[in-house]
Amino acid sequence: MQAHNLRDFEALAGACMDPAQFAYYAGGSGDEVTLRDNEAAFARRRLRPRVLVDVSTIDTSTTILGQQVAMPVGIAPTAQHGLAHPDGECATARAAAHAGVLYVASTMSTRPVEDIGKAATGPFWFQLYVQDNCGPQTEALIRRAEAAGCSAIALTVDLAVPGRRERELRALLDTSILRPGNFPDGPLAAPPPVTLTWRDIAWLRRTTELPIALKGIMTAEDARLAVEHGVDAIWVSNHGGRQLDRACASLDVLEEVVDAVGGKAEVYLDGGVRRGGDVVTALALGARAVFVGRPILYALACGGEDGVKLALDLMAAELRYVMSLLGTPSISDISRAHVV
Amino acid sequence: MQAHNLRDFEALAGACMDPAQFAYYAGGSGDEVTLRDNEAAFARRRLRPRVLVDVSTIDTSTTILGQQVAMPVGIAPTAQHGLAHPDGECATARAAAHAGVLYVASTMSTRPVEDIGKAATGPFWFQLYVQDNCGPQTEALIRRAEAAGCSAIALTVDLAVPGRRERELRALLDTSILRPGNFPDGPLAAPPPVTLTWRDIAWLRRTTELPIALKGIMTAEDARLAVEHGVDAIWVSNHGGRQLDRACASLDVLEEVVDAVGGKAEVYLDGGVRRGGDVVTALALGARAVFVGRPILYALACGGEDGVKLALDLMAAELRYVMSLLGTPSISDISRAHVV
Amino acid sequence: MQAHNLRDFEALAGACMDPAQFAYYAGGSGDEVTLRDNEAAFARRRLRPRVLVDVSTIDTSTTILGQQVAMPVGIAPTAQHGLAHPDGECATARAAAHAGVLYVASTMSTRPVEDIGKAATGPFWFQLYVQDNCGPQTEALIRRAEAAGCSAIALTVDLAVPGRRERELRALLDTSILRPGNFPDGPLAAPPPVTLTWRDIAWLRRTTELPIALKGIMTAEDARLAVEHGVDAIWVSNHGGRQLDRACASLDVLEEVVDAVGGKAEVYLDGGVRRGGDVVTALALGARAVFVGRPILYALACGGEDGVKLALDLMAAELRYVMSLLGTPSISDISRAHVV
Amino acid sequence: MQAHNLRDFEALAGACMDPAQFAYYAGGSGDEVTLRDNEAAFARRRLRPRVLVDVSTIDTSTTILGQQVAMPVGIAPTAQHGLAHPDGECATARAAAHAGVLYVASTMSTRPVEDIGKAATGPFWFQLYVQDNCGPQTEALIRRAEAAGCSAIALTVDLAVPGRRERELRALLDTSILRPGNFPDGPLAAPPPVTLTWRDIAWLRRTTELPIALKGIMTAEDARLAVEHGVDAIWVSNHGGRQLDRACASLDVLEEVVDAVGGKAEVYLDGGVRRGGDVVTALALGARAVFVGRPILYALACGGEDGVKLALDLMAAELRYVMSLLGTPSISDISRAHVV
Repeated sequence: MQAHNLRDFEALAGACMDPAQFAYYAGGSGDEVTLRDNEAAFARRRLRPRVLVDVSTIDTSTTILGQQVAMPVGIAPTAQHGLAHPDGECATARAAAHAGVLYVASTMSTRPVEDIGKAATGPFWFQLYVQDNCGPQTEALIRRAEAAGCSAIALTVDLAVPGRRERELRALLDTSILRPGNFPDGPLAAPPPVTLTWRDIAWLRRTTELPIALKGIMTAEDARLAVEHGVDAIWVSNHGGRQLDRACASLDVLEEVVDAVGGKAEVYLDGGVRRGGDVVTALALGARAVFVGRPILYALACGGEDGVKLALDLMAAELRYVMSLLGTPSISDISRAHVV
Repeated sequence: MQAHNLRDFEALAGACMDPAQFAYYAGGSGDEVTLRDNEAAFARRRLRPRVLVDVSTIDTSTTILGQQVAMPVGIAPTAQHGLAHPDGECATARAAAHAGVLYVASTMSTRPVEDIGKAATGPFWFQLYVQDNCGPQTEALIRRAEAAGCSAIALTVDLAVPGRRERELRALLDTSILRPGNFPDGPLAAPPPVTLTWRDIAWLRRTTELPIALKGIMTAEDARLAVEHGVDAIWVSNHGGRQLDRACASLDVLEEVVDAVGGKAEVYLDGGVRRGGDVVTALALGARAVFVGRPILYALACGGEDGVKLALDLMAAELRYVMSLLGTPSISDISRAHVV
Repeated sequence: MQAHNLRDFEALAGACMDPAQFAYYAGGSGDEVTLRDNEAAFARRRLRPRVLVDVSTIDTSTTILGQQVAMPVGIAPTAQHGLAHPDGECATARAAAHAGVLYVASTMSTRPVEDIGKAATGPFWFQLYVQDNCGPQTEALIRRAEAAGCSAIALTVDLAVPGRRERELRALLDTSILRPGNFPDGPLAAPPPVTLTWRDIAWLRRTTELPIALKGIMTAEDARLAVEHGVDAIWVSNHGGRQLDRACASLDVLEEVVDAVGGKAEVYLDGGVRRGGDVVTALALGARAVFVGRPILYALACGGEDGVKLALDLMAAELRYVMSLLGTPSISDISRAHVV
Repeated sequence: MQAHNLRDFEALAGACMDPAQFAYYAGGSGDEVTLRDNEAAFARRRLRPRVLVDVSTIDTSTTILGQQVAMPVGIAPTAQHGLAHPDGECATARAAAHAGVLYVASTMSTRPVEDIGKAATGPFWFQLYVQDNCGPQTEALIRRAEAAGCSAIALTVDLAVPGRRERELRALLDTSILRPGNFPDGPLAAPPPVTLTWRDIAWLRRTTELPIALKGIMTAEDARLAVEHGVDAIWVSNHGGRQLDRACASLDVLEEVVDAVGGKAEVYLDGGVRRGGDVVTALALGARAVFVGRPILYALACGGEDGVKLALDLMAAELRYVMSLLGTPSISDISRAHVV
């Protein structure tokens, strides 16, 4: 396997995966405008490198909700790692732990959260899809995640209806292969369409003592409401372009969200992060951390745990390289002035 | 027939129709700049999804000039449905009635308005091309439309001269195949070039008690004049890029028209509407309803009445999907803040 | 010959002409950025059509320096029409007279000005390349042009050095075929490199009583100087992208020139005019007339005098069409408000 | 060899060089966004030609740090000319001297500075990579450069870590072929990663009496610091897109640097300069001189010393041509008003 950067895994996975399953990972909704725009938004930005700064020591480490991580790049929750590799999310979790980065396991994982928790010896969160309008099934799932050792809950709030991804439809994906390990009693190809409202955030706040991040916030208005509802973190995301097509690129709304939050919660971003330069761009615009989704799946498909390790190694090396050339030896040195 | 969205019908129709007749439907005037720009204008916009709104019930229904419709998406008047299918406009009208959407029958229909009126058991308007400078022929046509049951007149005002579409010329379209059913006594391939002026609007206002929409308004100046002349609705349209090439995209002038109208008339738009996201974009910018033209013709060519039903079903499903993800459970929830 | 618009002649000429001679007509300097940008600048503009205006009579006629022309579109001076057709400029002049448009004959014509003057029974100007720093040779040339019946002199001011067009160089054009008919005593493939200054304008002003247009003005500063030097008209041109590559597109500087002139001289434009919509765009931005260059050469190559007649007919028809749809029945109706 | 402009040498060199070695010259870092943007930034600018200026005498000469040069275009320091031609930098230096332009020899030259100095009978600088954190090895290298006759030191400040160029990695470049002639005792494929800080500038200032230019400044902030540290010149550069990908294009930051410097140092630029029009664009925006990198290597690969001479001749001819048509007979005539 020859990958020089995270983008390379896409072509490699496209060559080795079943086409319909690859389409399941790769596709976006509608015309895939938002899918493409997520990456394009980074390409529209430019960096302002400072020179003659002492960069003899580069420190990429930071904290996310107080927890130490080797770099401000985590693994976004994505469903069904089992399509990529038999070890599924356990392989991903082991690679994340090896790299010292945060892994966020999806409700829709192929493997149950208990197995993932055992594999995840590093920072580990649980992404929650509410199952029954904040009833006992959801509470049970939270208890399982807590018991498995996760240190925060990332509640997905942008899935009022399941995504309609035409690439999958055209590829005639057999959805019976999608087997969520957290629900062994029955097939469940997609999270149930549950209408969440801000009242459910209050319920979640009461139901767990873990920190809560809301994943899928795309406006200043919702960011302010999230802060008012006492969440610990706001995760800017358009679900990787898989939900509302023509939603803004994540990066393009980051600043309005950061401004609205005013430091009262941490702000993360996913969508289009492929390069070390993307990471510093998002951090310069106010993100505390970013998350990578598809490239991890592709790397897992290409090489299992070793593939994910390679992806994370490449990202860590690129981030160090970029921070050296940007003149920002530590994460806290990265500022708004470094990006145009 | 496999269509996952309205765009798909274009390729399908291109494969099954006579090339010259397809060119007649598909072409625009000049370099087709406006034709392309109509769709591109939507692609330049971005949506701002709100989350944690109660979208357990989505209601796409609205009223157009007081008449209930299942969604704010109607079928624009287009000529010669008989090229697409033997049932012509009657098939289209039946599909529209089935979907509960407004159908606007063209003066240049293959089938006479009386036949269409019988098929149109749902909301049904008549698009008027003036025949003889607001003389007895035009009045007779209006009376026929009224008798056929149409509930409003959409007067086309952007056809001072017939469109010059080079794609048709290159395809060597045999215009003798264009047979307008409303004028059985003689061939009439195109509407007669009649110069209309604002005085004719007064004549029309006197001549019928039906509500009047002016179709083809593209400036704030003309929108204000239309309001002064007491029309009920203003229909932003560049005739699908078939008249003045390099005219602005419909969407790009919508806001100036809405601002000029100031709520004194309803405002509609056609041109480039292909996706549920397009509909909410136009509504967010102030349109009361939008109209779809070519995709309906293509769907009719692909599958007759069932084809049009499928197209309308796909649009309705997409609109529900987009409204769910945008956090706007009813049409009146869609606001300027939802679009960038 | 099947041409539906002026652009079509380019492909037709490319198919029938000697490739090197076609390259001589078609090429621009440098990377041909300005060549392409001339057309692109029109494509970036949009028109604002007004409706319900009485356009039953369209009048495209206007005056240029007081002389009546059938439309505000003239034939720009271009060299060596003999490469396109044996009749050369005489054919072009006859077609222009037939169409009632202004023909500007180049100093570098294949045929001598006397012959062209005989053929030019309509409006006819002479484009002047100074030969010997405003000495007797230049004066003699002016006298010949006056005697031949030209009604104005268009002095080219953007040829301080001959254009360097790499497309010609790559096509290995044999420049010995370029035979300027005005100078039968010797071969002269290109106008002599003569440095003109504003003092030479004063000389020209004294030397002829004909009106003078300066062709090649691209800035407000030079437009003001031209007015101060008493010229009658300012011709915005970058020599069709054949002189300074990366010069602004003609259309993009039109407004600054018009503003600087403040009505004290007529303003013309060439460069990229291909469509009726281009004509009204330039007029809306303040040009009194526009000139077409290469398409005339291509039409001449395709069909001689008849080819040029067809080109002018197509342009006239398009202009009438556009004026009808723009709601501007006469040239004086076209205003700044019609273009975005 | 048929080259009509500097760009042509790239294709010619691509055809005659070893692919991996060509990749070493041609590649940029990351996605090569900055590599492409350097040229694109010039293409986004437009020139404002002035006419009727006396351009009978064009003088392209200027001074760089007081030293007379035939034109404000020098040869940027690039490594390993020996890959292009056996004579390496000596051929380049001879061609530069022949053209009267400044040659800046790289620390990483194939030939030792002593040899280059003998060949460089014209203006000649030395580009310095610090070897041992401003210790005796670096001082020794400076002494050698001084003894070899260089008249200034250009210190590269944007190489805190070696560039990561994936095109090279994919081409499987054998880096053992990279043999820096200044360090015959051992292989050294890349400059050592040395962290420089502003304190090192003070050291350099003390260590040599030669004028100092800092190469790799990309921000107003660093330009101001450079002036405070007493350097003589600031060289805007992103290392030809070979270091930090997604750094701004050089041209896009030129103005902010020029404004920050406020005339207290000379400002140069490299990155994307290919045309005479590029040169006047950079000068209009405040650069005193520009430098050309890759095209010189390609010309050297194509024709050795004669190739470089041809490249410099083409550039000089283009610059004269552009200055004639821009209406700027001398370098000091080029002003901010000549560029948009």
